[in-house]
Amino acid sequence: MTPTLADDVEAAARFGADGGGVTREAWTPVLLEAYEWLGGRLRALGLDVEVDAAGNLLARWDAGTGPAVLLGSHFDTVPGGGRYDGALGLLAGMHAIRMLRERGLRPARPVWLAAFMDEEGSRFGTGMLGSRAFCGEDVSALLERRDRDGTTVAQAMAALGFDPARVAGARAIDRVGAYLELHIEQGPVLEQRGADVGVVTGIVGMIGLHATFSGRAGHAGTTPMELRRDALVAAARAVVAIREEGRRTGGLVTTVGRMAVRPGAFNVIPSEVELTIDVRALEAGTLKAAEAGIRAALAEIAEQEGVACELRDSHRMPPQAMDAALLARLREAAAAEGASAIDLPSGAGHDATILAPHVPAAMLFVPSRGGISHHPEELTTAAQCELGARVLARAVGLLAA
Amino acid sequence: MTPTLADDVEAAARFGADGGGVTREAWTPVLLEAYEWLGGRLRALGLDVEVDAAGNLLARWDAGTGPAVLLGSHFDTVPGGGRYDGALGLLAGMHAIRMLRERGLRPARPVWLAAFMDEEGSRFGTGMLGSRAFCGEDVSALLERRDRDGTTVAQAMAALGFDPARVAGARAIDRVGAYLELHIEQGPVLEQRGADVGVVTGIVGMIGLHATFSGRAGHAGTTPMELRRDALVAAARAVVAIREEGRRTGGLVTTVGRMAVRPGAFNVIPSEVELTIDVRALEAGTLKAAEAGIRAALAEIAEQEGVACELRDSHRMPPQAMDAALLARLREAAAAEGASAIDLPSGAGHDATILAPHVPAAMLFVPSRGGISHHPEELTTAAQCELGARVLARAVGLLAA
Repeated sequence: MTPTLADDVEAAARFGADGGGVTREAWTPVLLEAYEWLGGRLRALGLDVEVDAAGNLLARWDAGTGPAVLLGSHFDTVPGGGRYDGALGLLAGMHAIRMLRERGLRPARPVWLAAFMDEEGSRFGTGMLGSRAFCGEDVSALLERRDRDGTTVAQAMAALGFDPARVAGARAIDRVGAYLELHIEQGPVLEQRGADVGVVTGIVGMIGLHATFSGRAGHAGTTPMELRRDALVAAARAVVAIREEGRRTGGLVTTVGRMAVRPGAFNVIPSEVELTIDVRALEAGTLKAAEAGIRAALAEIAEQEGVACELRDSHRMPPQAMDAALLARLREAAAAEGASAIDLPSGAGHDATILAPHVPAAMLFVPSRGGISHHPEELTTAAQCELGARVLARAVGLLAA
Repeated sequence: MTPTLADDVEAAARFGADGGGVTREAWTPVLLEAYEWLGGRLRALGLDVEVDAAGNLLARWDAGTGPAVLLGSHFDTVPGGGRYDGALGLLAGMHAIRMLRERGLRPARPVWLAAFMDEEGSRFGTGMLGSRAFCGEDVSALLERRDRDGTTVAQAMAALGFDPARVAGARAIDRVGAYLELHIEQGPVLEQRGADVGVVTGIVGMIGLHATFSGRAGHAGTTPMELRRDALVAAARAVVAIREEGRRTGGLVTTVGRMAVRPGAFNVIPSEVELTIDVRALEAGTLKAAEAGIRAALAEIAEQEGVACELRDSHRMPPQAMDAALLARLREAAAAEGASAIDLPSGAGHDATILAPHVPAAMLFVPSRGGISHHPEELTTAAQCELGARVLARAVGLLAA
């Protein structure tokens, strides 16, 4: 009997199973074992399978003529990740192709499936390395980044038999005409709104900042309130102001995820606090206004509290809109499969962010129970997975017919 | 030539000098070397000197009759402490006795000087061990506490030739009629108000609490603001509310000194935050109202933010008033020496806290530059030290004449 999509999710989760979750980081033997298994399944469907110079697994159904409809996602995970992030996109893509072949579709153009290497970036501080190389970006500088043990990407590649000097050979975007990625939402919106699938209108832009508040240490008992320059009070007001800025505009999210307080003693007024600021929005203007609002609020707080506040950039990514025509196909496909669909942005980055500037690209989200992701408790039900795969198959049918 | 008080501060700072600061913890050989030096100086002044069963150095000028006027402080320091905290009280007391003897005072009652063991408590998590034993408190349970290396107080005592079983023999409070302690302020109030000395009206009571806020982790990009249960936003609002509570009432101080944020990732909404709350005031009613205010504010914030907030006790010390008649003598002495004096509470604990329930007790503060203490940069100028010692001598003269 043909394994169901749910069966395959379980089968894939064996590779890197860590007692509950899945740990299958970039450029590791266990990831290549997972490729081996997936490649075997795809060959059994009749596809040509290879692993390219950047570690992307590429399966080709080279029917018809012209640029390919590419389905894709990633097989790598964060440490202690879940079963669905990345893997589901590949397995749903595989099942979509299986359904189309079973229904006797004769595509007018090639249909490909790609597992992009190192989407997560958690091992080397990289991120979307494979899709960047696939799109022809120069990734040579990224290959020098090191993991916790000091191993570079290039060394890890070489240890698995890849030649880092040949990574540019992975470029294949020129033969692609459209990109579709199914992914778990990694957020609670579909569940909250009771929708079967989400049509991703765009991938948010991000601004990451580091803030340092510097005040003056003092004895908690002997320093009157009015003579204090308490770095933590200033930082706490900043956290509240950053949250208020995030609430001001729909679609904007702001988060302080890390905070370190020094010297960190029960009876000492904190002299220095460092915190991170994560700002995301789909509209570049919203992002820009939010950053300006946060900078102004923090400067005012620092002034009022008599402390210094320094901000430095961590990272910046512009928002990336998805292709309107592809979004229309996804909505049409959802309707045809009887799946309730809502539009929503993606708050996380994906390989689609990298492909979208090169080819029409779109994403389809399926629900994440409780919005949980990057965690062993990540869950999308078998029925939700199956319905997502059917919508994906229907969209590919529309595009490749 | 007789060494000045400033000379003696420098001489004492050689014991445990650690390249800038002074490290002279309880029950260490270097502390006993400092005792040796101080004892020699006090014997040269004509006093009888002994180290009692609890490691207190006690010097007696057994003139006159009746209960003694006891001067005291401590010679132990925190690791990397300053030259003045504790030591100045002993050295100023010694110089006060020298002045009185040089002026030919014939005291009507004994005048004693005590260096109390382990006031700081930094090594064993104890605090005011010597003065507790001196006052007849049962300290046997404290003797089982351990330092970073696992050594108990009892073991450290035995290694220096003390018999832990005999610690109760240190009780001598019954022969004391009044206690005076000169100490650096360890705060900025005298400097800010341009006063030469501070007459300490009481030692604040303290409430120490641990708070834990528990919310729900989530992806910083995919979780809309309105669906978050952000433990850090709640904790930040708590920090601000705790500060506001501290500002509401004169003489009250509130501090959050430690905060730990979990999981502590750039793009993850914090699920748990722990923080410490330090509340101090001279009035028991103020302390009680502040605690109630903080508890109510935190419960309201937790409710509003959809997170749980748990509070547990760390420590509690009731406020300790100083003796009104002794305070009057200190003001009289300051006026006679031309020293400007203001009343203020002590925000930190001192050996006087332990003696005050047993005998009339009072403290005299001298300024701390920038309010800095427990740090190598602790500084009270030679002139400020000298003036403090003169006021102390004058007060002893008034009490013992």
